Amino acid sequence: MHPTYTLTISCPDRVGIVAKVSNFLAMYGGWITEANHHSDLEVQQFFMRHEIRADSLPFGLDAFRTAFSPIAKEYDMQWQISDSQTRKRVVLMCSKEAHCMVDLLHRWQSGELACDIPLVISNHQDLQDLVEWHGIPFVHVPVRKDNKAEAYAEIERLIDEAQADTVVLARYMQIIPPALCEKYAHQIINIHHSFLPSFAGAKPYHQAYERGVKLIGATCHYVTEELDAGPIIDQDIVRVNHRQTAADMVRLGRDVEKAVLARGLMWHLQDRVLVHGNKTVVFN
Amino acid sequence: MHPTYTLTISCPDRVGIVAKVSNFLAMYGGWITEANHHSDLEVQQFFMRHEIRADSLPFGLDAFRTAFSPIAKEYDMQWQISDSQTRKRVVLMCSKEAHCMVDLLHRWQSGELACDIPLVISNHQDLQDLVEWHGIPFVHVPVRKDNKAEAYAEIERLIDEAQADTVVLARYMQIIPPALCEKYAHQIINIHHSFLPSFAGAKPYHQAYERGVKLIGATCHYVTEELDAGPIIDQDIVRVNHRQTAADMVRLGRDVEKAVLARGLMWHLQDRVLVHGNKTVVFN
Amino acid sequence: MHPTYTLTISCPDRVGIVAKVSNFLAMYGGWITEANHHSDLEVQQFFMRHEIRADSLPFGLDAFRTAFSPIAKEYDMQWQISDSQTRKRVVLMCSKEAHCMVDLLHRWQSGELACDIPLVISNHQDLQDLVEWHGIPFVHVPVRKDNKAEAYAEIERLIDEAQADTVVLARYMQIIPPALCEKYAHQIINIHHSFLPSFAGAKPYHQAYERGVKLIGATCHYVTEELDAGPIIDQDIVRVNHRQTAADMVRLGRDVEKAVLARGLMWHLQDRVLVHGNKTVVFN
Amino acid sequence: MHPTYTLTISCPDRVGIVAKVSNFLAMYGGWITEANHHSDLEVQQFFMRHEIRADSLPFGLDAFRTAFSPIAKEYDMQWQISDSQTRKRVVLMCSKEAHCMVDLLHRWQSGELACDIPLVISNHQDLQDLVEWHGIPFVHVPVRKDNKAEAYAEIERLIDEAQADTVVLARYMQIIPPALCEKYAHQIINIHHSFLPSFAGAKPYHQAYERGVKLIGATCHYVTEELDAGPIIDQDIVRVNHRQTAADMVRLGRDVEKAVLARGLMWHLQDRVLVHGNKTVVFN
Repeated sequence: MHPTYTLTISCPDRVGIVAKVSNFLAMYGGWITEANHHSDLEVQQFFMRHEIRADSLPFGLDAFRTAFSPIAKEYDMQWQISDSQTRKRVVLMCSKEAHCMVDLLHRWQSGELACDIPLVISNHQDLQDLVEWHGIPFVHVPVRKDNKAEAYAEIERLIDEAQADTVVLARYMQIIPPALCEKYAHQIINIHHSFLPSFAGAKPYHQAYERGVKLIGATCHYVTEELDAGPIIDQDIVRVNHRQTAADMVRLGRDVEKAVLARGLMWHLQDRVLVHGNKTVVFN
Repeated sequence: MHPTYTLTISCPDRVGIVAKVSNFLAMYGGWITEANHHSDLEVQQFFMRHEIRADSLPFGLDAFRTAFSPIAKEYDMQWQISDSQTRKRVVLMCSKEAHCMVDLLHRWQSGELACDIPLVISNHQDLQDLVEWHGIPFVHVPVRKDNKAEAYAEIERLIDEAQADTVVLARYMQIIPPALCEKYAHQIINIHHSFLPSFAGAKPYHQAYERGVKLIGATCHYVTEELDAGPIIDQDIVRVNHRQTAADMVRLGRDVEKAVLARGLMWHLQDRVLVHGNKTVVFN
Repeated sequence: MHPTYTLTISCPDRVGIVAKVSNFLAMYGGWITEANHHSDLEVQQFFMRHEIRADSLPFGLDAFRTAFSPIAKEYDMQWQISDSQTRKRVVLMCSKEAHCMVDLLHRWQSGELACDIPLVISNHQDLQDLVEWHGIPFVHVPVRKDNKAEAYAEIERLIDEAQADTVVLARYMQIIPPALCEKYAHQIINIHHSFLPSFAGAKPYHQAYERGVKLIGATCHYVTEELDAGPIIDQDIVRVNHRQTAADMVRLGRDVEKAVLARGLMWHLQDRVLVHGNKTVVFN
Repeated sequence: MHPTYTLTISCPDRVGIVAKVSNFLAMYGGWITEANHHSDLEVQQFFMRHEIRADSLPFGLDAFRTAFSPIAKEYDMQWQISDSQTRKRVVLMCSKEAHCMVDLLHRWQSGELACDIPLVISNHQDLQDLVEWHGIPFVHVPVRKDNKAEAYAEIERLIDEAQADTVVLARYMQIIPPALCEKYAHQIINIHHSFLPSFAGAKPYHQAYERGVKLIGATCHYVTEELDAGPIIDQDIVRVNHRQTAADMVRLGRDVEKAVLARGLMWHLQDRVLVHGNKTVVFN
């Protein structure tokens, strides 16, 4: 794979945006390997993502930013550019359940998930061996009713020290304090074990079992202050029937959870997820 | 297809039920073409469904009932036996939207849905031509705020006159009065245009659009007094993304609605759906 | 919905194509409502589709073509532009099986399929009433072993007379002569009742049953001289198990066939399907 | 979970089988927790699976076998009974690709896959660390063109020494000699990385890419002498489009492969898969 730059843009929709951006890129000989556009006609917002071969451009990221800034200002763009050679730094947070961690760590180890994982934080020690076998530091930060403030202060310190771009709650099972949700807005990814908005909150599979649904699901979303209500990145389901107990649903749901979280994280790492209000545009 | 009898049983679970029933059938030479069993270990209830070749038994339904009654009493069974040659009588109720009606009427016309449709009732006249082209009587019963009591009295009279076993709300879009829900318990099938329990009530696709979900769905369920909360027969979903407007979701959802309703109705007609509490056992 | 022009382009990939096209559109004030791009890095071919609000441009299709031609030549483009107000003309061909026809005719009648259907051609008369109830002329052209040449000459005459853009084989069940395949290349859409390349040719559900597969499917594709080998537009599947007979597979398959054909045709009508070699780019 | 016995039966269909078997079980007070039946009306074969609480029966497996044998003979049954407390012994065979192994080993470690894994055999050493971290012996048996006979003799010896009931080819990528296929008939499970019968043989994703299919899949099947032609246990698919390269298909396919293999193996371990001819009955 050739190194690429990824340029993502969100701005009010108007005539000429694509021309302006593509002219800019063409002027410098930029070789676009993937381009995606979306006009949200309801909210009149425009979204755009380009992958450009880095070696086709005559400059690096800093010069790109300098050259592009006037255009961005003219069109009132929220934008960013990233370099595929600068891997995102992802802190994983987990609890006792292993399935998402096993899945993510293997995808990372095999190179499928292109990121660095400087650190895993957990409120339990169950997964320490697994994490360390992958060569990743594991920090145990117990969270109890009586130490929440200290625990989350320590977690915040660890995330900052790790210079993380992204935090993944891989079945972390704890509620993140509002201040952290706000500080790392659109940077914390959670997997909720239901097809939201059905069965938000605790024990969703047991809620699903009680209701007698015929499909169960999982939802990957950005964490916001309101529990299980953040922008949805991806969802999926699996069919169940009367033979499944709540325990069977937990088992079947694990496969959906890990698949949906891995997909959502991969898209996030590739800058394919643009957030607008409480919704996402996913250029996958 | 050989004519069959279908025997369905629900009773408290205990040792020997299958032996008792299968002995009974074997004693009379009954040729079982399909058998399904389910023990719900949580509520200790047993469910069973047999299809038996009618010509393998030495008697008809009445004699069957007489001979089987003592066993049913001994095991405290809720049970019924039906004859595949006696087609169920289904009254369809619709409003303005055609997709479910086109689908059901064609499945009926082609013989896929083995039932009689003595009558279609609608609060609008939009689908009268469609229904009558299929050779089925169409009755227009307008429901307004000021005539609800009379309208539903008339509807009840029509259903009874038609000797209907089953009523299908094929996007009828009106709330059925509690008295009718109770009178025809487990006989009224509705299609709700969301993946329940998400987005119960009005305009579910618009709710789904606002929430930014990545899958939309439909739910086929028995109607109970509490809106959109009855026992679920089947559900399905279709994937959506940021490109779909609420109108697109309505369009995509139509295909899910008609498929889920047709499946649910077919299973109901074949006595494959056993209700226990607010949940269903579906032997499909 | 505002009227739109749809511009589709396929050309050898090189730097500057998007800039050139988007400049052209921006120069004339073109308001792009949807844009899709694809670079096939393996074959170095570029594909592009734009929807532009017609009322944002200062000219009609002819002037557009004149103004755009030099650019198209410069970049060696295969291209076309269409007007959403000029509905495509679709001739449907069918045989005895009704399910795809019922589905397509209803989607057309309800406005979901934006096309004109000047004519239905069939080698049997079974569906004449259905077609004529929709107000569409039905022509019976029997095809027998001893009259194939004459029959297909008549069919060709009818298609041409109807000024059809597109021919849909809605379970037509006859092999189209090579000369017609070539004459209407990428204009004849077929639904094959298997998940190609599995089970090409006759009786695919029976082949699937014999093989004991656990999923059956359907494939919508452009017709080419080689049977069931043309460019695939869409495919889908449904799960089966040991309980399904070949007849059950036929029944379950019908729902997949009609859904896949309707999707494929809708994308074709919206100029979302670009063919390159024996493969398709589908901007859906 | 209470210990259970699982009784599976396949025999020519006739009246009275269920009665005979359920009488036998009821006579001894057997508490049936799950029962499945299937009559294949085409080949006139009957299939049956019971799970019975072990503590409800007055005897163990040997006495069960003695008591049941006369019935089995009378009805010409192929049958077996197994004890959930006697875990099956599974030898995994792998090559260089890790994804199926990571998945299976984690499911085993977490208790989801109830079996013993006495041994992993591989023709490469890449996965040795992974296997040994799980505490399972790893044996490297290189297979080259010039040592096939010796290598497979060694493999056969290892399998026999491990007293394996089941061999799983977890992307082993070598063709098993006919003599071994026959010796371990219905005991060797393979995962093929296509939706069979499409794309049997080598490099199926590249074949799929070339054909331009819109869905790719995986197939879990018992190994027989004829390559990729054995009885299918399960299949699944994932949607692809023009944006996916062959490499993307390989990546996406991995998730389908591991899911389908894990499901197929779990059903096999629970004696849910009955083979008849070249097809399976899967009581899942």
